Amino acid sequence: MAEAQFGAETSQRGEWVRQANRFTDRITADGSSGWPVEPDRYRLVVSLACPWAHRSVIVRRLLGLEDVLSLGVVDPIRDERGWRFSLDPDGRDPVTGIAHLSEAYLAADPGFTGRYTVPAILDVAERRVVTNDYPQITLDLSAEWAAHHREGAPQLYPESLRAEIDEVNALVYRDVNNGVYRCGFATSQQAYEEAFERLFARLDWLSERLAGQRYLVGDTITEADVRLFTTLVRFDAVYHGHFKCNRQKLTELPVLWAYARDLFQTPGFGDTVDFDHIKRHYYATHHQINPTGIVPLGPDPSAWHTPHDRESLGGRPFGDGAPPA
Amino acid sequence: MAEAQFGAETSQRGEWVRQANRFTDRITADGSSGWPVEPDRYRLVVSLACPWAHRSVIVRRLLGLEDVLSLGVVDPIRDERGWRFSLDPDGRDPVTGIAHLSEAYLAADPGFTGRYTVPAILDVAERRVVTNDYPQITLDLSAEWAAHHREGAPQLYPESLRAEIDEVNALVYRDVNNGVYRCGFATSQQAYEEAFERLFARLDWLSERLAGQRYLVGDTITEADVRLFTTLVRFDAVYHGHFKCNRQKLTELPVLWAYARDLFQTPGFGDTVDFDHIKRHYYATHHQINPTGIVPLGPDPSAWHTPHDRESLGGRPFGDGAPPA
Repeated sequence: MAEAQFGAETSQRGEWVRQANRFTDRITADGSSGWPVEPDRYRLVVSLACPWAHRSVIVRRLLGLEDVLSLGVVDPIRDERGWRFSLDPDGRDPVTGIAHLSEAYLAADPGFTGRYTVPAILDVAERRVVTNDYPQITLDLSAEWAAHHREGAPQLYPESLRAEIDEVNALVYRDVNNGVYRCGFATSQQAYEEAFERLFARLDWLSERLAGQRYLVGDTITEADVRLFTTLVRFDAVYHGHFKCNRQKLTELPVLWAYARDLFQTPGFGDTVDFDHIKRHYYATHHQINPTGIVPLGPDPSAWHTPHDRESLGGRPFGDGAPPA
Repeated sequence: MAEAQFGAETSQRGEWVRQANRFTDRITADGSSGWPVEPDRYRLVVSLACPWAHRSVIVRRLLGLEDVLSLGVVDPIRDERGWRFSLDPDGRDPVTGIAHLSEAYLAADPGFTGRYTVPAILDVAERRVVTNDYPQITLDLSAEWAAHHREGAPQLYPESLRAEIDEVNALVYRDVNNGVYRCGFATSQQAYEEAFERLFARLDWLSERLAGQRYLVGDTITEADVRLFTTLVRFDAVYHGHFKCNRQKLTELPVLWAYARDLFQTPGFGDTVDFDHIKRHYYATHHQINPTGIVPLGPDPSAWHTPHDRESLGGRPFGDGAPPA
């Protein structure tokens, strides 16, 4: 997860600027990258709190890759060495044996001094990071891992829609996915207000787009929906209060709230959400904006299960495929 | 305003414990206290941000005491010497000539070491605090200043209802007025959660009470409504996010939201609310819970002006009297 280290990632104007991803090797079907797709060779490491990592958890499940690409889940609370496997027996990842994700970063590059982020895909035998390039990871799960997809897996990134998906993703990334962080980690009023205005202008734009169509691009679930969902599902739980994204709650934006509930209730989405990890991570980790570390009790997430009435817009969530079991 | 100084007012369990009011002299109709009610003798000093001070602003206006008891308004942002008159020309209160409220406290007690709080009533000639006893100030404006009330002033604290008003006020004070501060200033998760549960349980109790009756006690506005209102009107603007009172927004509690809007739209209530002072004060002052000092842009307060439909419950806001002009 991309987290704030105010010193290194804050501009003079008080804007928060995300560090670039460092490990951008790709795992490919033809192995030309040196990292061939191969069952049981790799391990996907995530925090369930992190929206960037959450994408890969959803896509892995939608595509049915659980049996070929295993999943490691870190503790939502980091220690001074970063993400750690303290939820596992003896505090070690049972597959790679590492205690801290940083070990796999330093194995790949002993001189690495950036943040240790999730998601990361590790080579199990070498105990090292292959890639932490989250935007590419999910696209490659769709395109490069196709031979291992389950029967009925959806087309999340179909050739014919890539240009449109890429375009939507770029706007959603800038103003929404990363926009909420730019609100929350701004250190000047002006930087905050610019991020806030862009965020809510983009949410209004999305509301308009989604008022008459069930999904963001085409009439089925795509990568674009996955990327918007992981921010929306965190909105009221953490971004609204903790990041001051408070023009409205998601529950007060009728189209987006129904859209988000529709996805939440679709297999692969809501069943990969852990509100406990999400809330504890954000509120307990960002001392620079929540020094007490106190985790709010609200809001009540039960409303995520209420009817959304989006079926009336048509659409075929999985296209010619079927939901994951 | 009662503000957090974590050291002095935090218990070992992480609970926030409000200091007692120090100056409890009373201004009385018969002058037996040594402080007789007298036009132009006193000055009410408030912050428009502060819910405790806001009570006195509302009551003064409802009772039509503007011409006999003048009002000084301090800057919502304090400096290291506390509340200051930096909104006035030359940074001095035009009536008493003081620059900081602390001067009036120290004039009354040179050894005073507590917090300089608003509301405070000053003796103008002596430039000193007579009382900062906010619960008594509004009751005395009703009872002791009766000779100077406007024609048509409401009975905010009528003899026949005092027992019931006192009872409601005690519960509202403990769980709501002070309860939001106990949520926001808690330094332990347990203290926060206890305050949160009591707050929302009391709001549920109030919703039930107000579902079938327009006002809290009797069928007219009383002191009890004034005291609940000043917390409710700040709820979504500051308490929901800044103090983590986030089970719901006020706008998501239908009975209380309609009740609060009804009062807001009643002369003396909404016209004394300054959301700018409120938001800037809370977010810029409490560095211990908002170190960046950034003030959120949301929520949009325009919804306060929407219809509330509470007239159908009957009630006579001003009883046999009339609204202030």
